[in-house]
Amino acid sequence: MRPEPRISVTQTKVSEKLNLFLSTPQPHPLDQLSVDEVNKTRNVILRSHPGVSIAFRTISLEEPRKSALVLFLQAEHKGELSRTKRPPRRARVLFEAIARDRSVELRESVVDVVAGEENSHEVIDKKHHAPLNAEEIAMFPDVALASPLFKKALAELSLPPNTVIVIDPWMYGGWENPDENSPRYMQGLVYARDPKTNNPDSNHYAFPLPLIPVMDVVKREIVRVDQLATGGRDDGFEYGTGPKEALAHCKPCEYIPELIPGGLRQDLKPLNVVQPYGPSFTVTGNSLVEWQKWRFRVGFNPREGATIHDLWYDGRSVLYRLSFSEMSVPYGDPRAPFHRKQAFDFGDGGAGRASNNLELGCDCLGLIKYFDGVMNDIHGKGVVSRNVVCMHEQDDGILWKHTNYRTGRAVVTRNRKLIIQFIITLANYEYIFAYHFDQAGGITIETRATGVVSTVPIDPGKTSSWGNVVSPGVLAQNHQHLFCVRIDPAIDGYKNTIIQEESHPLPYSPEINPYGNGYEVKQTILKTSGFADAAPQSGRVFKIVNQKVRNPISGRPVGYKLAPSPTQLVLAHPESIMAKRMAYASHHLWVTKYHDNEFWAAGQFTNQSSAEYGGVKDMADRKENIENEDVVLWHSFGLTHNPRVEDFPVMPVETHQIQLKPADFFTKNPAIDVPSAKNQTSILYKKGGLVSGFVAEVPQTHESDRRKAMLHVEETGVEVLIQQTQQQGIKACCM
Amino acid sequence: MRPEPRISVTQTKVSEKLNLFLSTPQPHPLDQLSVDEVNKTRNVILRSHPGVSIAFRTISLEEPRKSALVLFLQAEHKGELSRTKRPPRRARVLFEAIARDRSVELRESVVDVVAGEENSHEVIDKKHHAPLNAEEIAMFPDVALASPLFKKALAELSLPPNTVIVIDPWMYGGWENPDENSPRYMQGLVYARDPKTNNPDSNHYAFPLPLIPVMDVVKREIVRVDQLATGGRDDGFEYGTGPKEALAHCKPCEYIPELIPGGLRQDLKPLNVVQPYGPSFTVTGNSLVEWQKWRFRVGFNPREGATIHDLWYDGRSVLYRLSFSEMSVPYGDPRAPFHRKQAFDFGDGGAGRASNNLELGCDCLGLIKYFDGVMNDIHGKGVVSRNVVCMHEQDDGILWKHTNYRTGRAVVTRNRKLIIQFIITLANYEYIFAYHFDQAGGITIETRATGVVSTVPIDPGKTSSWGNVVSPGVLAQNHQHLFCVRIDPAIDGYKNTIIQEESHPLPYSPEINPYGNGYEVKQTILKTSGFADAAPQSGRVFKIVNQKVRNPISGRPVGYKLAPSPTQLVLAHPESIMAKRMAYASHHLWVTKYHDNEFWAAGQFTNQSSAEYGGVKDMADRKENIENEDVVLWHSFGLTHNPRVEDFPVMPVETHQIQLKPADFFTKNPAIDVPSAKNQTSILYKKGGLVSGFVAEVPQTHESDRRKAMLHVEETGVEVLIQQTQQQGIKACCM
Repeated sequence: MRPEPRISVTQTKVSEKLNLFLSTPQPHPLDQLSVDEVNKTRNVILRSHPGVSIAFRTISLEEPRKSALVLFLQAEHKGELSRTKRPPRRARVLFEAIARDRSVELRESVVDVVAGEENSHEVIDKKHHAPLNAEEIAMFPDVALASPLFKKALAELSLPPNTVIVIDPWMYGGWENPDENSPRYMQGLVYARDPKTNNPDSNHYAFPLPLIPVMDVVKREIVRVDQLATGGRDDGFEYGTGPKEALAHCKPCEYIPELIPGGLRQDLKPLNVVQPYGPSFTVTGNSLVEWQKWRFRVGFNPREGATIHDLWYDGRSVLYRLSFSEMSVPYGDPRAPFHRKQAFDFGDGGAGRASNNLELGCDCLGLIKYFDGVMNDIHGKGVVSRNVVCMHEQDDGILWKHTNYRTGRAVVTRNRKLIIQFIITLANYEYIFAYHFDQAGGITIETRATGVVSTVPIDPGKTSSWGNVVSPGVLAQNHQHLFCVRIDPAIDGYKNTIIQEESHPLPYSPEINPYGNGYEVKQTILKTSGFADAAPQSGRVFKIVNQKVRNPISGRPVGYKLAPSPTQLVLAHPESIMAKRMAYASHHLWVTKYHDNEFWAAGQFTNQSSAEYGGVKDMADRKENIENEDVVLWHSFGLTHNPRVEDFPVMPVETHQIQLKPADFFTKNPAIDVPSAKNQTSILYKKGGLVSGFVAEVPQTHESDRRKAMLHVEETGVEVLIQQTQQQGIKACCM
Repeated sequence: MRPEPRISVTQTKVSEKLNLFLSTPQPHPLDQLSVDEVNKTRNVILRSHPGVSIAFRTISLEEPRKSALVLFLQAEHKGELSRTKRPPRRARVLFEAIARDRSVELRESVVDVVAGEENSHEVIDKKHHAPLNAEEIAMFPDVALASPLFKKALAELSLPPNTVIVIDPWMYGGWENPDENSPRYMQGLVYARDPKTNNPDSNHYAFPLPLIPVMDVVKREIVRVDQLATGGRDDGFEYGTGPKEALAHCKPCEYIPELIPGGLRQDLKPLNVVQPYGPSFTVTGNSLVEWQKWRFRVGFNPREGATIHDLWYDGRSVLYRLSFSEMSVPYGDPRAPFHRKQAFDFGDGGAGRASNNLELGCDCLGLIKYFDGVMNDIHGKGVVSRNVVCMHEQDDGILWKHTNYRTGRAVVTRNRKLIIQFIITLANYEYIFAYHFDQAGGITIETRATGVVSTVPIDPGKTSSWGNVVSPGVLAQNHQHLFCVRIDPAIDGYKNTIIQEESHPLPYSPEINPYGNGYEVKQTILKTSGFADAAPQSGRVFKIVNQKVRNPISGRPVGYKLAPSPTQLVLAHPESIMAKRMAYASHHLWVTKYHDNEFWAAGQFTNQSSAEYGGVKDMADRKENIENEDVVLWHSFGLTHNPRVEDFPVMPVETHQIQLKPADFFTKNPAIDVPSAKNQTSILYKKGGLVSGFVAEVPQTHESDRRKAMLHVEETGVEVLIQQTQQQGIKACCM
């Protein structure tokens, strides 16, 4: 455990005075650091570490200790902020101190941003490596292409002259016995560009080459070029001759519109989401969101991307913090060097750092609020990354409906959701992460995998046990995506209890279950930190309850429930380095006692790790009491991805959702007050009128709308848009 | 097995001539019967069954035998219909023949509609009972309220005078030893109406009474009134005194807007789906739908509701037929008479018959095509039930995305879906069933459970092991919803093979798996009809392949894959009547060899059954060869529903999806040609302008739209709607 940073009493008092007297609004303790704050922090570090060159890795908000933040949040919710002490505003900084002799030390400091002082610093153990940064990723191809070793290997492939080589830089994967002498390595997957188009956006993953150069990052030197086995099902681990002539053997398989043979489909008509009265949400300050009785803050940091904080519904606390903690992608091809194809996309790179800058009209429909992210460059300067998180409302079909068959009266409401989304690109792959909130108190945590599957070469005409041929000469290897979501609950308070609940048949006996239909619900309180697994065959769910607060209707403790996804867990052997590095993925659910700064399922430092250093397994192994305590849940789930041909050149989203639902948290369906408003712009399909002359049928009661629409047709030729002219209000849906 | 109906050669020839010479278009063989055809069928039955009174249960299309229909469909797809023999147009009729002595015989006939002749008829075994019909459901409360037995039982409850009693008629559930003397029974759950409002749409489920009257349907007589146990956790099966004064003890819990205390939430702004160029689908004739390379027919029948037939994608066959086959809801409260609370919502009632008449603007957004259903009344007259099925397009976020991080070029497409949906009401419960088709060849089969949980009384202040108290004095009992979806595949032809596929670690050994990361994919061909279960821990999926057609890229047989939902199976004891009636729910997947007229997972006749008569277990038990054969898959899945307080008074949808995805069916991502069109109507959130004065930010390139919008604001005060004025086309999303 990292020692708690020292905070001097004097400093805190200064901050306190500032709180009371500053006229400009201060950032909320959960707001990201501003560019100014990043720059101030940088200066503190430069001042505090003389005599060395500093290469900044990460400068980001050090979230306040929970004990302090909770006091602040409680005051905030009571409207008593002016009388409350603000937690110190701090930054966590990971950086390299480079001495005159070029020796490098990885250091981590915590800086009080307001006081302009370093609170603490430590030198990171040499066995750990910082995550990759943009400079290293940019450097790799240049170093490789200049390397005599790599040039020699390339020359043996008898590629045509002037072939453009494209390299996907990768983390090096697991390292057998890390020590202070472990070099910092990277590896690269090598491809050729299709010379026929020579388009920099053509899909090079269709032209894989049988080489993996390995770079010593500090020396900026290719130290080895691994030759890839390119054989098929019956070739074992033989390295074969390999498909040396990738450009003869492989064929283009493109995804950019102008290169797709036959062009794009032409018969998809626009579908627009229009919100004429604006959104139903409000955003206050930099991070506070209110929508449909929900209230929470959106955070963002370079490692996790978007995070959710201090989540309340209708004046009651639900979660303290919600985040995606880690994701690892291990490959299942046993042929060396593929055992080193294992990416930790949060720990090795950073999901926030890899976040796409989203563009209006591309990634969401309707009315969009974007949040920017503040990051830093290698010089420690604050950099704004625009539109890294988007927020919008979405309709998801029916929320609830009932028809009284006696009277024919139907009441139906629609399932409006608020979606906070970010998208990351990691060389070939894309992931779309989202938090959904609904009006019935439900929370959905969604992941979508898309992008290009990682490919390697395979000899002409062969097939493989380790993957699928998705294009001629192109093997997409079998792999897994193993996610971990971190859920820090606060169900009506910060001390909660986890109950494992299952449904089981009762014994078939005259006394207990005379007709054999009976079943019982069994509950087990989790008392000590540890793990549990999904068991859908037993209807297993986990309830997060507050034992001190009873639901006045049911008499049960108020709670939320999580049905963990019973997906396949890690397939690598438990004794393999690959598996040891992601012990978090060996069980579906971990429950730990909260400690400050424990955010990372696979530990803080994953790059080139050989095990989880301070990961969730270590936290659970403390065997702490977790009954009626400040607990944290970690849900690991995954996708065993044995690629289909359909996953190439870009795979359709593979979507996965997990849900947190209130379970006796409310005294009735909390969405029962959602208006059953009749949508005024829905129109009837009319046969035959599809493009020109398309005529909408509108209800007779909206004759003025109809006239307006017809007028519009006359004016514009083809367009019909029934506009909502009524004031927003309730027109119930009845049958 | 029912004998194949006899068809005379002469009749067929007549039909054939008609085909060739009729000038008016004939119905497609999969079109529902028209009202005229129902009426003609009725007359054939009346003529063919003299000397008895006829009460019609069901008149619906007898789908052609597959051998005949396949020939027709093949000719249709080749455009050679004019030279092809039409399968006979037939109706299946279930009816009661009532003799002078009031004895009733259940009969079933098949009628050639064109020839006007009965092809076959059989008398149904007396142990079987027809499904409930509307007349019986309507009759029950009248018979009960007039019954001295029931009146006496009610009087003992000391309800205030003039209390309005509301009864939910139910099927009687399982019957111990059915024989020719088994009476036809129904039971009723009894409630009081809240006298304070006396509103016929108030929620009577909040005022349950401890009585279940049992009616002999033929005699129209209450034969027994069961007293309900109303005790709590420690009261065992004791019947107790029960909460006699429901109206004093219970409290209202309402869902109709005008009765909700505090009214409705006022801050939900409209979200409209606008399709200015019309839909992307076309509908031809009564049933043919074409959308985004999909082509299929929508069927509808009184039992299954909407069905999907002859599903093709881009000129290739995928499925022959897709349907919801059965759904049973068994209750887990072991106290008699609750062991008889078990509904078969398809077999006992009929999902089609229970379908809601959907209303524009209530159940879907955007541009809607409705399909009507043709059913019949007790006199055999054809009746049109309007808008029982809806079809519309929906946006479901991102379909695929990739950013080339080198150039910054991003290509992103949206996941447009086509949704065919129907909604059924079964007294208290609602179910929403939907088929989703996407542009990547995927099929999603969705169920949503909503409506009101079934309630019974519980003594004041008590809690129960058998359910949850969801309102004062109201117990919502634990139960399951066990669905079965029937999938009749036709992957590039009608002979398919099912492969069970799993992912397993390789042994950790230097020869096989030197680094421990390797895993293998194991395939097992299912050779004989039978069952299989979900096994997510092994990554188990089932591939439906055509062994005769190889994917030219991967060399593997073309196929689709199904990952069955690993939900909890039936909890009732296997020897209980409840479980025997739904053997289909004892395994997740059944694979049978196709036989005509085998549509029903729990058998044709479920009402008052004591076992599955000719259900899927019986079909599987034939142990037929299913390799490279005409196979049918049946996927059973469920929801163990231990109610939350939040499920009352109307529960938020509990949504479940299963997916069929192409697996080496295509030679690349079939959605790679979906345009990455930039949506022109998305707008930016602007702080502060939420209701009045809300100003949209639009891209500068759309300055004319902006002016239009601003003009609109001036005219109407508050409304801003950015209209799409560009012709539909591709404006790629690039970053």
